[in-house]
Amino acid sequence: MFSEKKMAILTIRAELLNAARCWFKKNGYFEVHGPTLIPAVDNWPGYFEVRYFDKKAYLSQGLQPYAAVFVAKFRKIYTVAPTFRAEMGSTKRHLTEYWRIEVAQRCDLDKLMEFEEALVEHICQSLSKQIPETLKCFQRSAENFAKVKTPFPKLTYDEAVDSLQNDGFNVNWGQKLTWEMEKHLSLKLTGPFFITKFPMSTETFFNKSDPERPELTLSADLLAPEGYGEIGSSIQRITDRNVMSQKMDEENVDPEHQRWYMNFMSNKSRPHSGFAIGLERLIQWTCKLTHIEEATAFPRTPSNVYP
Amino acid sequence: MFSEKKMAILTIRAELLNAARCWFKKNGYFEVHGPTLIPAVDNWPGYFEVRYFDKKAYLSQGLQPYAAVFVAKFRKIYTVAPTFRAEMGSTKRHLTEYWRIEVAQRCDLDKLMEFEEALVEHICQSLSKQIPETLKCFQRSAENFAKVKTPFPKLTYDEAVDSLQNDGFNVNWGQKLTWEMEKHLSLKLTGPFFITKFPMSTETFFNKSDPERPELTLSADLLAPEGYGEIGSSIQRITDRNVMSQKMDEENVDPEHQRWYMNFMSNKSRPHSGFAIGLERLIQWTCKLTHIEEATAFPRTPSNVYP
Repeated sequence: MFSEKKMAILTIRAELLNAARCWFKKNGYFEVHGPTLIPAVDNWPGYFEVRYFDKKAYLSQGLQPYAAVFVAKFRKIYTVAPTFRAEMGSTKRHLTEYWRIEVAQRCDLDKLMEFEEALVEHICQSLSKQIPETLKCFQRSAENFAKVKTPFPKLTYDEAVDSLQNDGFNVNWGQKLTWEMEKHLSLKLTGPFFITKFPMSTETFFNKSDPERPELTLSADLLAPEGYGEIGSSIQRITDRNVMSQKMDEENVDPEHQRWYMNFMSNKSRPHSGFAIGLERLIQWTCKLTHIEEATAFPRTPSNVYP
Repeated sequence: MFSEKKMAILTIRAELLNAARCWFKKNGYFEVHGPTLIPAVDNWPGYFEVRYFDKKAYLSQGLQPYAAVFVAKFRKIYTVAPTFRAEMGSTKRHLTEYWRIEVAQRCDLDKLMEFEEALVEHICQSLSKQIPETLKCFQRSAENFAKVKTPFPKLTYDEAVDSLQNDGFNVNWGQKLTWEMEKHLSLKLTGPFFITKFPMSTETFFNKSDPERPELTLSADLLAPEGYGEIGSSIQRITDRNVMSQKMDEENVDPEHQRWYMNFMSNKSRPHSGFAIGLERLIQWTCKLTHIEEATAFPRTPSNVYP
């Protein structure tokens, strides 16, 4: 049932996770598991709905807000778990079910990005050492992959918009970067890089804002080069209860539905940041795959939940 | 938010998985991921239903039948993944969302049980070596846990029924053993043990039958001692397409709904067996927990999907 190519992809998938876990272990990260079934309180778009006995539940889109609870006690945590998005999207870039490598720890975003790039460096080094022959199946040389080294280049959102405008893209400051824009930027580089400090208008409400320029968030996307685009994202979280209350007001989030988290924040939450890397996105770049569906054995796409 | 006890439980949880993965690595098992979202073709009881765009899907209850496809190519595979059961049950023993350590490999059941018990032995040895102080939080001495050694005692289903009848239980051959019966049997032992060769009447249709006594299946449950009962189950799979077709007939399973798998079986399936261990069940025994909810950070039970 699996082709030779699929076998090679799955070999890279397994080794990639092995490398990630080795790095987590060596660096003192604690493995945790958040829930997959989460309460469906507001009517959130993009979530899969589950019939949960006489209630309804959603399928999780990541470890937040549970990460904050873990981090308060364990300082540096990670999870590797399936994640779900009920979005119609290109099968080139989107799966409805994908696996996330997710990290949270007590530090600011700059420090977090150092860990994030160190993890990706370690994964690339490990792949080139452990399975150089498998990399060759995808026209990747172990030597080139071994050249992925920290620190990764960093581009601010402001710089990215300037660069895109100079290259003829019709983009205004404050807009979300489209996939075509990400692709264009990532074609200019040969290794992974960050785009940092996205404007508040493109981000979710629980991102901390930049103290120096409140219209920006402390956020950073990790992009793969060669036109592959975003593979991960990271943010520093709001940990001040009053700031969070105010944000919820602005975004019309019912605080009653987040009461346990707000109660938790009031006295227990510590400053922390987190990142998530999409496993299949990372594989897509590693194996130079046109369609992300190829990165997993039994892919789930909007049109396909079979076999 | 987490008590000292919960911190100790989560520490054991993380170390237990670390020990399992070390054992898998040392023994050449290949890590795979099956889908969580599976097609909802027949009307299966006990499955959570997901609204999948304009279709419906179910949440997975394990790696079958995907395990068979992986095993055909990779020989010895494992996965660690969340699993879902839409069943009302005692919060002492049942979660609606739990994590499974699942293995499949090309061998018969007797050989598989050797690997299963070796894994559990390795986990117990690792816990006693790596986190003896954490074990003490649960009145477990590292010395006693280090005494968990293979081979584990094996009791046939026939012997289990005889023993229960002798002890005054009202049980007939062919009945499923209840939780009270399991508990009674497991109170007699000080270490994990197997109950083997359950009758066809208590098992699912894809279990291979015993060539010597076709009314029995090649199956084995792994039980924890001290009254904790079942923590894992293992079976040898049917790999003959004609036998499977006949079984599906008997069980009124629509073969059309399993066509991809039947096509796959016709020429590619290799003899194989598999086992699954419930992570929270294993933790429940390790930490002497009354309620299985305690074995995870954010438990999901029939009445609770919050926070």
